[in-house]
This record gives sequence, structure tokens and C-alpha cells, in this order.
Amino acid sequence: MTNTSSNLVIGVDLGGTTVKTGLVSGDGVVMYQAKRPSHGTDGPGAVIKQIEASVREAMQHADGRTVTGIGIGSPGMVNDRGVVQSPPNLGKWDSVPLKDEIQKLFPGVAITVDNDANVAALAEAKFGAGRQYPNFLFVIWGTGVGGGIILNGQIYRGPKGGAGEIGHISIDYNGPECNCGSRGCVEAFVGQRYLSKRTAERLKENPKSKILDLVGGDVSKLEPYYIAQAAHQGDALAKEILLEAGTLLGVAIGAVMNTLDFSVSIIGGGISAAGDFAIRSIEESVRAHVLKPLQSEIRVLPAQLGNNAGILGAAGLVL
Amino acid sequence: MTNTSSNLVIGVDLGGTTVKTGLVSGDGVVMYQAKRPSHGTDGPGAVIKQIEASVREAMQHADGRTVTGIGIGSPGMVNDRGVVQSPPNLGKWDSVPLKDEIQKLFPGVAITVDNDANVAALAEAKFGAGRQYPNFLFVIWGTGVGGGIILNGQIYRGPKGGAGEIGHISIDYNGPECNCGSRGCVEAFVGQRYLSKRTAERLKENPKSKILDLVGGDVSKLEPYYIAQAAHQGDALAKEILLEAGTLLGVAIGAVMNTLDFSVSIIGGGISAAGDFAIRSIEESVRAHVLKPLQSEIRVLPAQLGNNAGILGAAGLVL
Repeated sequence: MTNTSSNLVIGVDLGGTTVKTGLVSGDGVVMYQAKRPSHGTDGPGAVIKQIEASVREAMQHADGRTVTGIGIGSPGMVNDRGVVQSPPNLGKWDSVPLKDEIQKLFPGVAITVDNDANVAALAEAKFGAGRQYPNFLFVIWGTGVGGGIILNGQIYRGPKGGAGEIGHISIDYNGPECNCGSRGCVEAFVGQRYLSKRTAERLKENPKSKILDLVGGDVSKLEPYYIAQAAHQGDALAKEILLEAGTLLGVAIGAVMNTLDFSVSIIGGGISAAGDFAIRSIEESVRAHVLKPLQSEIRVLPAQLGNNAGILGAAGLVL
Repeated sequence: MTNTSSNLVIGVDLGGTTVKTGLVSGDGVVMYQAKRPSHGTDGPGAVIKQIEASVREAMQHADGRTVTGIGIGSPGMVNDRGVVQSPPNLGKWDSVPLKDEIQKLFPGVAITVDNDANVAALAEAKFGAGRQYPNFLFVIWGTGVGGGIILNGQIYRGPKGGAGEIGHISIDYNGPECNCGSRGCVEAFVGQRYLSKRTAERLKENPKSKILDLVGGDVSKLEPYYIAQAAHQGDALAKEILLEAGTLLGVAIGAVMNTLDFSVSIIGGGISAAGDFAIRSIEESVRAHVLKPLQSEIRVLPAQLGNNAGILGAAGLVL
């Protein structure tokens, strides 16, 4: 029997290569999901067509129940009118009023668009590791280092929607150049490209490391995911690298804790495969870099939602 | 003729050595002010007696108009119930419910207590350089480096009242030890003690610097204030030192701008005597340490209120 008394929403996780779309109930259960290519290099028109098709498909699985809202998590900076600016992995895309474009296609349905890091943060706040914490910093540690701030249970977007760019906190004013143009950004120490490069160098002196097995001997395939996997399997070099990286990430997180008087951070991205000790190394470092009254309260937790965070958080925007 | 239609408030600026108390009108005019010793080393009872006496004295100058509120800016961490914890320059003081103690003495009058950096930030927001900016970071650059965050025109205190501790953002994870126990805190580069020490060393090679004249040849008297004065008079070494220090301070401010998506900082404390070029060096550095979309919007401004900021901001708490 169809339950028409309880409404549904749709969460769209837009990325450079795929659009993942899910039909989500009010208590955060993904009742149907599918993914298709986003055609991210073909410009906004092509991407919007893919979003539309995926939403219409999801709506067909609503079994007669009303879809009251569509939430969209997008790369790039998103302002409070749902305009998406310069998303890093979507081509021919300068500034696009994505909310208005989707609204035209689905009149009468509430549409909200937000940055993908904010959306993942909201997912953890509503359905994941952050449920009991009204205030926390969410960190995505993967290709880059991104962040989302949850303040009083809500996303803190900042005046122009650009808040949470913790990857570009400099932890060494004389440090290596970052591709943002600044120096010593934590991303320039622990982001995928930089971490992989330094790991490749150290593998020359550690040819027996499990990391090499996991990438089939091809260091060009190195990603933090494999380092994390090797660490999980007990590889000493992988552990050492992640311990150092976690310590450096903790310096930047500590800066945010001191600024906002926060005590909780939740870490998502590829690193979540590395197991508890990576999280512990971040936690120890954060604790060492905050003022005394905060130290005993510092908690660093792994994200809980993994691949579904994008869909769930996007749904959370309109729930 | 006495105007009884317009109410007045009292602002109390509590410090380790003095209590400054002012009678303030709704539009931020200080109509009467006086200072007396705070007896900060004699414990909370003595300090509270001094606050009481100064408030009663100010009330006598109200000319029959009603005093509706008393705002107090205090050193230390202040929670949302007005409890003052471990103020650095007040002795025999662990945790004191200052709001409740003052309320007992002045029943029926609204009492609000906040941290002195927050209070100075609020003063600039309501009456000073921040009047047109709903969001900014206020920085006190003096003995230490402190901060206050103004978000949507209000003080952002954080969950436990400890927000804005930007002096302990590490700008060099391998940097010098800070007396907070961490490493490379920006305060450990540009706070009074550290800055004076490094200046004393460089004066050995620059014996003709005006800085030496200003302290009467006694380097133990070195304070950023004198370095700022010398810079203002065109002294090359003083300018160089402040330029470097401003650049370092800008790294930490940039971290806050990236995190909060803020574009404006207001700088108070001894440095305000250094003139425009010190502010410009901070501004250039902040701009170099934020992401591209923020760069053109970055503004670093000198505080406008000087010595009256404490009284005006404390009054602002209850206006």
C-alpha cells in the first residue's frame, strides 16, 4: 500500500563525472537511487539536462507520494540565491543560476542548491557522526582539503557562501607553494597530489611497502585511498605518512577550533579507510594546537555516511 | 533641564590595574567617565567593590535620568551566564559569577558581562570602524594577539564563550614555542614580548634607530607602541620590523577569512599608532593568503575608538 501521508524529497549529488540522485524519506532513508554521467565538460546546458532526467526518473519511483523538494550539492562556490560559480570540475561554467534553472523545470517544488562540502557536512549533522553535536567542523580530506561548518545545527555559509575553505589555511608561512597561489596551505601538504608525490619519493627507499602492491607497482596511481588501505593492513611506511599528514591537518583544524570555540571535527573523504589511528593522529594534533580550556573537549570523529553523504545531505537541504 | 525621556547605560572596562567606568547615552556619547584602581591582585571581592564604587559614582552623574543597564568588559573567558574564568591579570580568581555578583548590588538593572576583546569588537561595530560592516574580525595587537568576531552585527561568542582566540593560530608548525604550549602561534611571532625581544637583538646592529631614543636607550622598556612611534617618525628599522610583523599577522587573519568567508578585519591595540603602512602590510598579507574570490574584497582597517573602546563596547552590551 502506498503511504501518501509522508512526503519525499530528492537529493542530487552533482560531480564532474557523475550525477547521483536519490529519493529520500523524511527520516533519511534512501528509497531509490541511481547515477548517470554529468557531462561535466559539455557546459551548463548539458549538465542541467542530466540533472533533469535523473530527477524525473527518481520521481517515477515515488509511488504516488509527493516530492516536496529537490536539494542539490554542487562543486564550486554557491551563493544564497543558488548561483554556482567556477566549479573546479565542470567546464564552460562561469556563473550559472542553477537554482532558477532547475526551478523552471520543476515549478512548485522547493529547490535548494549548496556547495558539496557543505552538503556532506549537513548529511553528517542530520544522519551521521554529527547527530549529537550542534557545532562541528566537517573536513573532506581527498584530492584537496575542504570543509563545511555546522553552527547551531545549520550550515554556516558565510556572507558570500564561501565559508569553510580550511584547505587554504597556511600552516607554514614559508612552506611549499599551493596551486591557489599562497604558501604552506595545509592542502599543499596533505592534499592528494602533494601527498602522493611525497609518498612516491619515499617508496624509492621502501620498495617493500604494501602501498606499491596496492597500486600494482605504478606510483602514478598513488592516491591517499591506497595509502590508507596499506596503513589499515599494517604497513609501517603508510602509517608513518598518514601519522605525519594527520598531524599537519590537525594544525589547521586547531586554528578553526581556536577561532570558533568548537571542539568537534568530523573527517570524511578517502582517509576514512585508514582506520582509527589516522583519526587519532589528527585528534592529538588538534589538542596540541588549541588553548587549554578546549583541550579536554577536543573530539575528532570519522564520517559515517561514505558514498551516500552527497545524496543524503542534498536531501537534508530541503527536509 | 534634565531630559528624562532618554535612558543611559554604564560601561565598565575592567583591567588588571584599573577600572574605567563611563556613563553613555544611546547614541554612544560618553557623558562622564572616571577611572580607579581595580585592586586586581587582591581577589574578586576587592575588585567587585571597586566596580560597585565606580558604578555608583557614575550614577550620580546621570542627572536624574534612569540607568537601565550596566555592561562590563572583563579579561579572561566569560561564559553566557557572565561567569569570568581565569582572567590573566586578575589574581586569586578562578571562576567568579561576576554578572550575578553585580546584579545583587544593582537589582532591577540589566547586567551583561563579556570578554574584553569581544567588547572592543562590539564598540567598533556600533560606534567605530565597523559601523558599515555586519561581519568582521577585530584584532587586538598588543601584549598578546586577541580577537573578537562580529557576525551579523552581533558578537560571536562560540559554544563556551571562547571564540576569537586568533593569537594561537599556528602559522608555522615548526615555529617557536608559545607560552600556551603550542608552536608557531602568531602571538609567539608578533606579541609584545616576542616582538620586543627580536627588536632588541636587531637594535644591536642598528644603534642609530629612533626606537632606542624613544625608550631612553633602555631596551627593557621596548613595547610595540615605541616601535610603532619610531616607524611613524620614519625610522627604517622600525618600519621593517612592523612590515614583517604585519605580514605574519596577515597569515593568521587570512586563515580566519578563508574559514568564515569574511573580508574585513579591524586592527586595534598599540599598533594603531604606527600609521597607515603597518595596516597596509597586514592587508597585503591577508590578500595573499585567501582564496581568489575573496582577494579583491579584503579590507584591513585601523580601529577608531582607542582608549574609549572598552567603555563604549561595554555600554554597547546593554544598549
